[in-house]
Amino acid sequence: MPRLVMKFGGTSVGDIQRIHRVARHVKREWDAGNELVVVISAMAGETNRLIELTAQVASLHDAREYDSVIATGEQVSSGLVALALQAIGVPARSWLGWQIPIHTTSAHGSARITEIETAELERRLKGNEGRERQVVVVAGFQGLAPDGRLTTLGRGAGDLTAVAMAAALKADRCDIYTDVEGVFTTDPRIVAEARKLSRVTYEEMLEMASQGAKVLQARSVELALVYGVRIQVLSSFLEPERITPMGSDPTAGIPGTLVCKEDEIVEQHVVSGITCSRDEAKVTVRRVPDKPGVAAEIFGLLADANVNVDMIVQNISEADKTTDITFTVSKGDLKNAIKALEPALAHMGQASVISDGRVSKISIIGIGMRSHTGVAKKMFETLGERSINIQVISTSEIKVSVLIDSEYTELAMRALHAAYGLAA
Amino acid sequence: MPRLVMKFGGTSVGDIQRIHRVARHVKREWDAGNELVVVISAMAGETNRLIELTAQVASLHDAREYDSVIATGEQVSSGLVALALQAIGVPARSWLGWQIPIHTTSAHGSARITEIETAELERRLKGNEGRERQVVVVAGFQGLAPDGRLTTLGRGAGDLTAVAMAAALKADRCDIYTDVEGVFTTDPRIVAEARKLSRVTYEEMLEMASQGAKVLQARSVELALVYGVRIQVLSSFLEPERITPMGSDPTAGIPGTLVCKEDEIVEQHVVSGITCSRDEAKVTVRRVPDKPGVAAEIFGLLADANVNVDMIVQNISEADKTTDITFTVSKGDLKNAIKALEPALAHMGQASVISDGRVSKISIIGIGMRSHTGVAKKMFETLGERSINIQVISTSEIKVSVLIDSEYTELAMRALHAAYGLAA
Repeated sequence: MPRLVMKFGGTSVGDIQRIHRVARHVKREWDAGNELVVVISAMAGETNRLIELTAQVASLHDAREYDSVIATGEQVSSGLVALALQAIGVPARSWLGWQIPIHTTSAHGSARITEIETAELERRLKGNEGRERQVVVVAGFQGLAPDGRLTTLGRGAGDLTAVAMAAALKADRCDIYTDVEGVFTTDPRIVAEARKLSRVTYEEMLEMASQGAKVLQARSVELALVYGVRIQVLSSFLEPERITPMGSDPTAGIPGTLVCKEDEIVEQHVVSGITCSRDEAKVTVRRVPDKPGVAAEIFGLLADANVNVDMIVQNISEADKTTDITFTVSKGDLKNAIKALEPALAHMGQASVISDGRVSKISIIGIGMRSHTGVAKKMFETLGERSINIQVISTSEIKVSVLIDSEYTELAMRALHAAYGLAA
Repeated sequence: MPRLVMKFGGTSVGDIQRIHRVARHVKREWDAGNELVVVISAMAGETNRLIELTAQVASLHDAREYDSVIATGEQVSSGLVALALQAIGVPARSWLGWQIPIHTTSAHGSARITEIETAELERRLKGNEGRERQVVVVAGFQGLAPDGRLTTLGRGAGDLTAVAMAAALKADRCDIYTDVEGVFTTDPRIVAEARKLSRVTYEEMLEMASQGAKVLQARSVELALVYGVRIQVLSSFLEPERITPMGSDPTAGIPGTLVCKEDEIVEQHVVSGITCSRDEAKVTVRRVPDKPGVAAEIFGLLADANVNVDMIVQNISEADKTTDITFTVSKGDLKNAIKALEPALAHMGQASVISDGRVSKISIIGIGMRSHTGVAKKMFETLGERSINIQVISTSEIKVSVLIDSEYTELAMRALHAAYGLAA
């Protein structure tokens, strides 16, 4: 029988009425005969309330106690969803991370899933051994450490639980219900013409998630890519009964966006999406000696300070045998980055650091870039025509990112969206 | 080393400040070198909030899902208490019911403890095998069913967890922290002269709990009696540092009330306490045929309807070979009781039912009654002098209960309190 994982985020179970709507989404798929795993996040606001409680008790957490407290959010919502399903005649039971178990590392607060035991869940899904088959409702975001204590997988890791369950149980699709209709060509709040994509590749989705799109957690997309889990992103606010239930072809009749392998996408775009990130700060180390080992020292110091560096550019040498090194970090890391560089500056004579937080990173992303030329050129031309100065460039196989003055963010995005023909 | 179980109820952990005070109570005992098990209830109001959530989702509960949701209250508070202890330098970890495990029956919502695994807890308490010893913080009220699902033990069963832990770990004492200073001769809100008892026997405490005193749950007292667990009832609002920590004599220097065996009580009272219960309703079945099997039929019907009958009295036969049977039930059961009697009335000719909800049950309780005569006589005299009519009487070895018009409740209690010399 077709097997489907359905994941509902915190806003989708934010109150009792919404929990009942979630149950109707599940009932639709149940009535169609699908085997169902339903992954539930904590009710919106609940995780923050619990974090706040632990913060009020002690500023320095024991991460094991923290996880034990925080994991209750999903324990409550998964129980409530199971009750809501039973109330409309759908057999269901909730499963906590430790009951399945979802084994994880002992890295409390951001544990990694190591193994999911599926034998008992298979029996429940199929209804083996004379048992009635039932919906498996899973408390997302949580697992069991080797020493028997509760772990959590990190913020937003409800998606990760869903994809991991889909991989372990070889589900035909993993539907991620959220508060938007799917994956868009760009942020519709900035570009009115933004259009929902019907399909997007794992690689594009991964770049989008990494470059600022918040619709899916990057770790989950990575996992889906590795295990070939088809993901659909769709809105939980659609009327449940107006959606076509999954049938024998899990790629057919979907209202959201399907994240899948390249060969499942017929209509290929050169550029599929445009993202922006305003959480960038630019740091330039000026007049550093242009000799071997200097870059290694600078980025070694940053790594030691746990500062994540994104874009890097190094100018050619000046006449005085010095050069400039420019890189970007997240705004939150800027202070730490500058402090981390102090030891290097101390012995580099004339070197100095300047920084700028008023920058945005704009990225164009598309799997078609691999086989098309001139994609980057069109980006630079489009920005040039609007007199938008490009400060730093970085590229990957399917992405071109530029750093620009943040004043021009919206202008640049609208111009690029039109230039690549992304409007409907 | 002396071993102590400390139990804190919902009001004692009702907010962050109170949780820190709980930690100071525990630190006092830790600093004195005691081995400590700390049992925690859900923060005040939290269990009701969770019950309300499940009730909003579905009026008919799956008790297994209900338990999974409700058990989160203690999961949160036990984690917070462990964090608060760590913050003041007391090594501690929280233990959930399933982690210990506390094995229970599968009677969800009111499960019975069947076994507590203690080997690992013993190691933590003693600090065996090179490990630092630590405080064992236990989430009260919850356990693990044979099929691996979460159970809860019923309302107020945090006390039960504490006494069961004390029994399993052979603790020297079990301190129940609550919002009153101890066990009183009677309700101080009714009788201003009510006095805190320094010691009371299990048997007396059991009668008090059953006859309306709310300070300890009756099931917990029963368990303490069976396993000989010394209980102290005391207030969590006392300044933690003003209490003397437990030393080698667990009956010495206690600020609350010690519930213990008869032979640990030097100064014996004939009557130790007076309780009242207003949750009574009186039912009289009039003019029932006075022949064998009639009482069996009436009380059989009530038992089938799950109506708990307390006091029973039957008059002598009238000239017409009929009699009256009077009994009491809790007010909440009154409707069900009357309905349950319908089949009997149908074939009993002239029989009819009358009921009265304006009654109170007043009980005098004292282990000394076993060896003293005239105790009941003094009660009847005292009430008679105030023209208080006694409607029903029932007695046990250490208790006399009377049913009176509820208008006279306070008058009766004050008169009896004085008559038995219970004031300081």
